[in-house]
Amino acid sequence: MSESHIIESTLRVRYAETDAMAIVHHTNYIIWFEVGRGEYVRQQGGDLAQLEAQGYYLPVTEVQTRYLAPARYGDLVTVRTRVEEGRSRQVTFAYEVVMAETGQLLATGRTKHVCVDAEGTIKVVPQEIRQMLRSN
Amino acid sequence: MSESHIIESTLRVRYAETDAMAIVHHTNYIIWFEVGRGEYVRQQGGDLAQLEAQGYYLPVTEVQTRYLAPARYGDLVTVRTRVEEGRSRQVTFAYEVVMAETGQLLATGRTKHVCVDAEGTIKVVPQEIRQMLRSN
Amino acid sequence: MSESHIIESTLRVRYAETDAMAIVHHTNYIIWFEVGRGEYVRQQGGDLAQLEAQGYYLPVTEVQTRYLAPARYGDLVTVRTRVEEGRSRQVTFAYEVVMAETGQLLATGRTKHVCVDAEGTIKVVPQEIRQMLRSN
Amino acid sequence: MSESHIIESTLRVRYAETDAMAIVHHTNYIIWFEVGRGEYVRQQGGDLAQLEAQGYYLPVTEVQTRYLAPARYGDLVTVRTRVEEGRSRQVTFAYEVVMAETGQLLATGRTKHVCVDAEGTIKVVPQEIRQMLRSN
Repeated sequence: MSESHIIESTLRVRYAETDAMAIVHHTNYIIWFEVGRGEYVRQQGGDLAQLEAQGYYLPVTEVQTRYLAPARYGDLVTVRTRVEEGRSRQVTFAYEVVMAETGQLLATGRTKHVCVDAEGTIKVVPQEIRQMLRSN
Repeated sequence: MSESHIIESTLRVRYAETDAMAIVHHTNYIIWFEVGRGEYVRQQGGDLAQLEAQGYYLPVTEVQTRYLAPARYGDLVTVRTRVEEGRSRQVTFAYEVVMAETGQLLATGRTKHVCVDAEGTIKVVPQEIRQMLRSN
Repeated sequence: MSESHIIESTLRVRYAETDAMAIVHHTNYIIWFEVGRGEYVRQQGGDLAQLEAQGYYLPVTEVQTRYLAPARYGDLVTVRTRVEEGRSRQVTFAYEVVMAETGQLLATGRTKHVCVDAEGTIKVVPQEIRQMLRSN
Repeated sequence: MSESHIIESTLRVRYAETDAMAIVHHTNYIIWFEVGRGEYVRQQGGDLAQLEAQGYYLPVTEVQTRYLAPARYGDLVTVRTRVEEGRSRQVTFAYEVVMAETGQLLATGRTKHVCVDAEGTIKVVPQEIRQMLRSN
């Protein structure tokens, strides 16, 4: 994919996202990945809410995350989201979370998705979504 | 209401529920209230999931909470749930959260609910639900 | 307080913030309140993280919320935060959450806070914090 | 590892854990993994809170999860936790989440951890913890 298809989303760490180690709880990075891919779809002119209204969902089938350095309350973090692979029945997003100011890498990850209808049946990813998620 | 209609739910504090003060983040008590009222309905022979399948929802219209002492990771806490008032168009639950072992009071609260259909229109609370939620 | 001390924070609803009613789960508004007051302090030149590094914490002692209309995935919402009352031993924040585009009121709320040290002992709110939180 | 070191934790799905697809949001399985490993340590006679009081933390450095079938509000799910590998500087837990009643497999996962002190410096996992986490 071309570099131009990396979408950046900047977020400020919420107090509710911290845990008793005084760092961001590891599950929140995965929520930030979700924020990143929503923004990716939006910047491609798409809208997950609209897709769902049409009966198409993109549930997560796999998550992989590596944590390199912690973020803390009040930190500004940037999620860099790209489509790593878009196939007829599966989409893979890849992510990096960095400190917005220094670029320090905090976490990397990947999520895989299938397209299902409201009953949960796996469908070929509709052309409309594939356009949105094309990786190049 | 009679004492016999206080339902107790005991939970162990999750690490994810703590925050950077090393205590339970205040919003989690309100999630525990929700666990408590789900259990209340279940012990009255009801099932919120089944009600929703029938198109009835009980969204929260008001929350009040007072925090008296903190819970920490690994603590066993008990939520005591009762119906404070059940009316034709509104239900009020009241809650206490205590340390399971000592009975120390950690938080008290109250939630108000209306009954809506899938379109969000307020409905008279169906007789079936009123039976479940009768406070005496 | 003067109008100039209402701080606005605009957030896009995350998928993780929704629940099975396909609306924002009620506890997330209370997390948004927290985002709002962090922003309030920051815009007054303060920093809760720095206060905590100095051993001062502002835990929540009370929450009240009223829910008027639901927000959904992808909605842009604005939290309006103000200090309702700043006393020597207690601070009260008040909040409104509105749809960013239409101004439709979604929820209102209030949180009360005391100032404690790292051991949880209640302290007089330090002058530095009172300056930050002055309501006029 | 021997089968006897699989620890089972049974949880009822909370409403707050669902999302707009009316299924459990994928991050909650990872919170359940954390519940499972807390229980694992507890059943080996350990206590993560006590370790933290002694200045030892086990932050997550990697998460992998596969989602096979969704859980919904009110479902009883069982997390099966085991130590896959315990080394001097790294511990790997493996998990399965199944429907408590039918045994249907919902998700599998793995988390890796290092041992750090309060400053975040990586330490050799103390003998006391290695005993707790021995996989056979």
